[in-house]
Amino acid sequence: MIESPINEIDIVKAKTSKIEKVDFNNLAFGKTFTDHMFVCDFEDGKWQTPKIIPYQAMTIEPSARVFHYGQAVFEGMKAYKDENDRVFLFRPEDNHRRINKSAARMAIPEFPKDYFFKGLSELLNLDKDWIKPGIGNSLYLRPFVIATEPAISAAPSETYRFMIICSPAKAYYKGKVRVLFAEKFSRSADGGVGFAKAAGNYGAQFYPTSLAQKKGFQQIIWTDASTHEYLEEAGTMNIFFRIGNTLITAPNNDRILDGITRKSVIQLAKDLGIECEVRRVSVKEIRAAAQDGSLKEIFGAGTAAVISPISAFEHAGDVFEIDDIEESYASLFKQGILNIQHNEAEDLHGWRFEIK
Amino acid sequence: MIESPINEIDIVKAKTSKIEKVDFNNLAFGKTFTDHMFVCDFEDGKWQTPKIIPYQAMTIEPSARVFHYGQAVFEGMKAYKDENDRVFLFRPEDNHRRINKSAARMAIPEFPKDYFFKGLSELLNLDKDWIKPGIGNSLYLRPFVIATEPAISAAPSETYRFMIICSPAKAYYKGKVRVLFAEKFSRSADGGVGFAKAAGNYGAQFYPTSLAQKKGFQQIIWTDASTHEYLEEAGTMNIFFRIGNTLITAPNNDRILDGITRKSVIQLAKDLGIECEVRRVSVKEIRAAAQDGSLKEIFGAGTAAVISPISAFEHAGDVFEIDDIEESYASLFKQGILNIQHNEAEDLHGWRFEIK
Ligand SMILES: Cc1ncc(COP(=O)(O)O)c(C=O)c1O
Ligand SMILES: Cc1ncc(COP(=O)(O)O)c(C=O)c1O
Repeated sequence: MIESPINEIDIVKAKTSKIEKVDFNNLAFGKTFTDHMFVCDFEDGKWQTPKIIPYQAMTIEPSARVFHYGQAVFEGMKAYKDENDRVFLFRPEDNHRRINKSAARMAIPEFPKDYFFKGLSELLNLDKDWIKPGIGNSLYLRPFVIATEPAISAAPSETYRFMIICSPAKAYYKGKVRVLFAEKFSRSADGGVGFAKAAGNYGAQFYPTSLAQKKGFQQIIWTDASTHEYLEEAGTMNIFFRIGNTLITAPNNDRILDGITRKSVIQLAKDLGIECEVRRVSVKEIRAAAQDGSLKEIFGAGTAAVISPISAFEHAGDVFEIDDIEESYASLFKQGILNIQHNEAEDLHGWRFEIK
Repeated sequence: MIESPINEIDIVKAKTSKIEKVDFNNLAFGKTFTDHMFVCDFEDGKWQTPKIIPYQAMTIEPSARVFHYGQAVFEGMKAYKDENDRVFLFRPEDNHRRINKSAARMAIPEFPKDYFFKGLSELLNLDKDWIKPGIGNSLYLRPFVIATEPAISAAPSETYRFMIICSPAKAYYKGKVRVLFAEKFSRSADGGVGFAKAAGNYGAQFYPTSLAQKKGFQQIIWTDASTHEYLEEAGTMNIFFRIGNTLITAPNNDRILDGITRKSVIQLAKDLGIECEVRRVSVKEIRAAAQDGSLKEIFGAGTAAVISPISAFEHAGDVFEIDDIEESYASLFKQGILNIQHNEAEDLHGWRFEIK
């Protein structure tokens, strides 16, 4: 017997909306959630009928494997509204593909594409009032999967929960960011899980980042764990360097997250005739370029902040300031991507995905 | 004002015990839990009054940071009973020290020593019937800390929950173990969190281990991530090699868990006049020793399995079988440690800690 894909989602609507209580001009990132959430459990070897229910706390055993072994992966994506209240996602197929790539590395079963898209669209239809039009506004969507089996032997879970929760957002980073190049701590190993959005990759960065923050640097740019000579990525952003008029970014490998913003920047650079080299970037080269004045920009690229200009870096006790420039690539790409996301520019590559 | 340490624990006893329903001769590791659990929340910048309550599911927000960023650490320890129903722990101060070391690396506040010991002793007094006398029986104790703040920005939690849950156990591994030496995947990076019992370290091993299992090897012995030339440790055990009559084990570094069983073996070897070298062990050396017959034993050392003899290893497509030997070091150390744990041998180093 062939099982047909479930095309129904059980929906329980919230009796009242919390939206009136939310001050959309003063949103702390990731602390306010919409009225509904998407939930789908993996049991008896398969994903069960998905449901959408009012956003609420859940009940879970203290022995659930996620608490003990960090068997959990997630995604980060956003929904945008144009001036006509049409709702769009940005390259969501890539998020679906990536959460399954992350899942495979963490021994978590892959999540079916139709559930993912059906879930997103039902959820966004219910909670679309939470998406405010206007560039800079968005609804941050957090799909994630956790291992729920109540068993603490060191083995993969037999049961999982896939969820999507939604949080209204303004720009993530305020102002320019000062960064530190990692010299001692590392984010991930060759042959490890750095390329996956595995939960533990993030918690592991909090302590080194807190040390950086005490020295006045908001973020760390991670280097390869073996030599600390090559620049890889930041905690939640891929990194671009502009030397002269050329952009440079590290190639993907098993330590680096294959960012959707990163690859969009690479494509836009091509569209705009800006040279972009995807190759290893050494600390030495960037220090030298900062010294001789050819380093024009460094910026991060990621869903949360879109593009985040970096104004200074520290390495081996030396601080290098990067002067503001007019017509920066950072603002060019930021505007370019935001315009596509908000349906204010032509979508040459089919990146917009309308929710109907 | 100096705050005095809280010496009271709020205790709510279970109305009925589940113990009658448990078949102590057929225990799957880590699936059965005792009647009570210890819970202590970190809020407003400090650990609140601890409590012991009936073992139960808990309520937690889907946005709790532990689910998204794996900000979680744990310990593994055991309680043992002697023939007179006296209850002992084994070197518990080391578990307390280590959970705080793990916590610091994961930006989690340290847990006070008096709460830890008071919690353990109250909990074990309530659930002592779950500890069966007899070598091989124990109550596995799982202290752990999870980040509970309902916020999904990539930053450390403001709130945490420390818990201890208890699960009756027999020997963890059945029979001898065949292992694979890691050649591609890695467990942790220099400058990473491998030395910590951080949740994500474990989930990250499930997939590579499942591949090994498909090839007929139950465990992986991890090598250094940069070269894969040096043998480090297994998923939940440190590793010892016996070449001739000399024991060798890798030194601690920031990739390796500083195991309590490991250091007990090193001390017992000293007591017994067995030479033990703590130094880097290369794959090459172990292959050569297997080939010329001088490799007598490999065994793992960890709380769950105590000592786990390894009967074969695979590397670069070659499988090396290790013949059984009489009077193995593995059985010597296993017996030695179990006898101390169960109060059947003299405790020369003050490792036993009686719960009264
Ligand atoms: C480690 C890491 N690098 C880079 C990115 C940027 O990826 P994307 O552009 O797909 O958001 C993210 C986050 O999303 C990340 O977590
Ligand atoms: C990675 C790892 N190595 C080694 C060990 C052994 O340490 P211990 O002897 O303290 O149990 C453990 C588990 O406890 C572990 O998780």
